[in-house]
Amino acid sequence: MLEACSRPDLITEITLQPVRRYGTDAAIFFSDIVLPLRAVGVDVDIKPGVGPVMGKPVQTMSDVEAIAPLDPSDVGFVTEAVQALVAELGGTPLIGFAGAPFTLASYLVEGGPSRDHAKTKAMMYGAPEVWHALAARLADISAAFLQVQVSAGAAAVQLFDSWAGALSPQDYTEFVQPHSRRVLEAIGATGVPRIHFGVGTGELLGLMGDAGADVVGVDWRVPLDEASRRLGDRYAVQGNLDPTVVYAPPHIVEARTRDVLRRGRVAPGHVFNLGHGVLPGSDPGVLKRVVELVHAESPAHAAGGSSAG
Amino acid sequence: MLEACSRPDLITEITLQPVRRYGTDAAIFFSDIVLPLRAVGVDVDIKPGVGPVMGKPVQTMSDVEAIAPLDPSDVGFVTEAVQALVAELGGTPLIGFAGAPFTLASYLVEGGPSRDHAKTKAMMYGAPEVWHALAARLADISAAFLQVQVSAGAAAVQLFDSWAGALSPQDYTEFVQPHSRRVLEAIGATGVPRIHFGVGTGELLGLMGDAGADVVGVDWRVPLDEASRRLGDRYAVQGNLDPTVVYAPPHIVEARTRDVLRRGRVAPGHVFNLGHGVLPGSDPGVLKRVVELVHAESPAHAAGGSSAG
Repeated sequence: MLEACSRPDLITEITLQPVRRYGTDAAIFFSDIVLPLRAVGVDVDIKPGVGPVMGKPVQTMSDVEAIAPLDPSDVGFVTEAVQALVAELGGTPLIGFAGAPFTLASYLVEGGPSRDHAKTKAMMYGAPEVWHALAARLADISAAFLQVQVSAGAAAVQLFDSWAGALSPQDYTEFVQPHSRRVLEAIGATGVPRIHFGVGTGELLGLMGDAGADVVGVDWRVPLDEASRRLGDRYAVQGNLDPTVVYAPPHIVEARTRDVLRRGRVAPGHVFNLGHGVLPGSDPGVLKRVVELVHAESPAHAAGGSSAG
Repeated sequence: MLEACSRPDLITEITLQPVRRYGTDAAIFFSDIVLPLRAVGVDVDIKPGVGPVMGKPVQTMSDVEAIAPLDPSDVGFVTEAVQALVAELGGTPLIGFAGAPFTLASYLVEGGPSRDHAKTKAMMYGAPEVWHALAARLADISAAFLQVQVSAGAAAVQLFDSWAGALSPQDYTEFVQPHSRRVLEAIGATGVPRIHFGVGTGELLGLMGDAGADVVGVDWRVPLDEASRRLGDRYAVQGNLDPTVVYAPPHIVEARTRDVLRRGRVAPGHVFNLGHGVLPGSDPGVLKRVVELVHAESPAHAAGGSSAG
C-alpha cells in the first residue's frame, strides 16, 4: 500500500480510475494517511487486514522530538504525481488529501489502529505538554503535505480526521481543534477551499467547521439539513449517502440519493459523496447510476455546488 | 465466556464483584448478548479477541424460521442465578440485561462482529420481509430472556443495542425501533423500569426513548444536558463518563465526574455510569473514588436519582 502511494505512475492511475469510470466532478488524490509519517522517517508499515502499525509507539517528549518536519523534497513523488494528474484531468479539479493531527497521533501513540484510543486520551489528560507538542508537530507535517499538493496544482484539500468521532466535544475543543486549525489556516493562505472530514462526528460538526473549514464532511448518521442547522448554515456540507445503500435494490438507491440531494439543498453548498469510503464488493454499475442521478438532479444554476467525488 | 454465563455460581460471583468492591447502588446481571441465542440452539461461540462467531450466518427465511423461541426452561440457570443474587444483594437492586434485536441480528447475519453491518443493512433494504421476521423473532427472545430475569427478582432491565449507532435515524425508525419497542413494551407490562442503551447513538436518543424506555443511555460523545434536550426532557438519562478518563490524573477524573453529575441534573433523572464498559487496565482505586464522589455529590433529596452502576 505505502509502495503504491510512493510511485507517481500508480498514484496517477488509481486517482484517475473513478473519474474515468464514473465521470465524477472531481478526483481525490490517492494516498494513505500515514504516508507523510513514513516520508519523514517514522517506522510505519501497513499490515493487510490490520492497518498502520508503528515500529515504536510515541510515549515521551523525546519520542516526539525525534519526528522530523516534512520538507517538500521528502515527497518529490507527490509533486510529480499531482502535476501529472492535473495535466491529465484537464478541467476536472483535483482534491488534495492529508490525515489530521489527532488521527495521525492516535496511530503513533497507540502503535496501530485502536477502538478506544485509550493511550492517546491518557496522554492528553496525563501529559498534555507531550500531547500538544506531538499534535503541533503533526499539524506542521499535514500542512506541509497539503501545501506540496496545492503548489503542484491541487484545487482544494481534504483534511481527514478519521477517528475524531471518538472524542467528546470538550476533549476535541481542548486537545484537537487548535492543531487542526493550524493545518487549515496554513492552507487558507493558499486560497483553495478546505474540506474537513470525520466519521461519527455529529457532535463535533460546528467545532470542525470553526477550525477553519469551508466544507464540513458529514457521515450518514446525521441528515444534511440537520447537519447544516448545527453548522449555523455557515458552511457547505459534504456527504452523505450510507455506503451500504449501494447494496440496496435500485428504487431504494434512487430514493436515498434524492433524499441526500434534497436535504443538502438547505446548506450554502453541497458536495455529494458517500458518507464514508466505498465498501468492498460495491457494484460499480450502481455507483455509476448514483453519479448520473446526482448530475441529472443538480440544476445548472447550482453548478459546482453539487459534485460527485 | 458462554460457559461462565451458564453457571449460576459464576454469574452470581461476577455480578456481585463490583457491588462489593465499589459499593455501587445497583448490580448488573452478568451475561453475554448472545447467550439467549445459544440457549435456543443457535450455533454460536465467543472467540477470544474476536467476539461472537456463528456456525452458519442467517440469510434466508428458512434460516430465520429455524431459530426457536426462548422458553424459560431453556435458561433455568438464569432464574437460579437471579434468585441467588437477589437474596445476596439485600436492598441493592439487580438490573437485568439483554441484547436488542438489531445487535443480535447483526451478529447472526454478518456471522460475527462487523464494522459496517453491510450484510445486515443489505437484508433490510433488499429482503425486508426476511429482516422483519428475524428481528421480530429476536425481539421475542430478548423479551422472554428479560421476563425470566424480572420474574426471578430483577428490579429493572437494560436493553443493550451495542451497534445501533451504525444506523441512520431513517433506518433505525423503519427497521429497528418497532422491534425494540416490542421488547420494551413486553417488559413494560411487568412494571419495572426499562433502560435502553447504545453507543454512538447521539442521533437516535429520541427514537430510543420513544421505543418505550424509561431511561436512555448516553455515551460520552453527547453531554447529558444536550442529551436531555434531545429527549425533550421526558426521560431519565444514564451515563456518561468517558471510560478513558479513568486513566487521567485525579484532578481531571474529579472534574469530569462533577461535570457529568452537573449536566445530568438537567434531566428528570440520572443514573451515573461510564459511557461504555470499563476498559482493561483501569485502576480499581480510581473507579472506587469515582463511586465515592458520585455518592458524596448526590444530595439526599435526589436519592435514587443518581446511582453508580
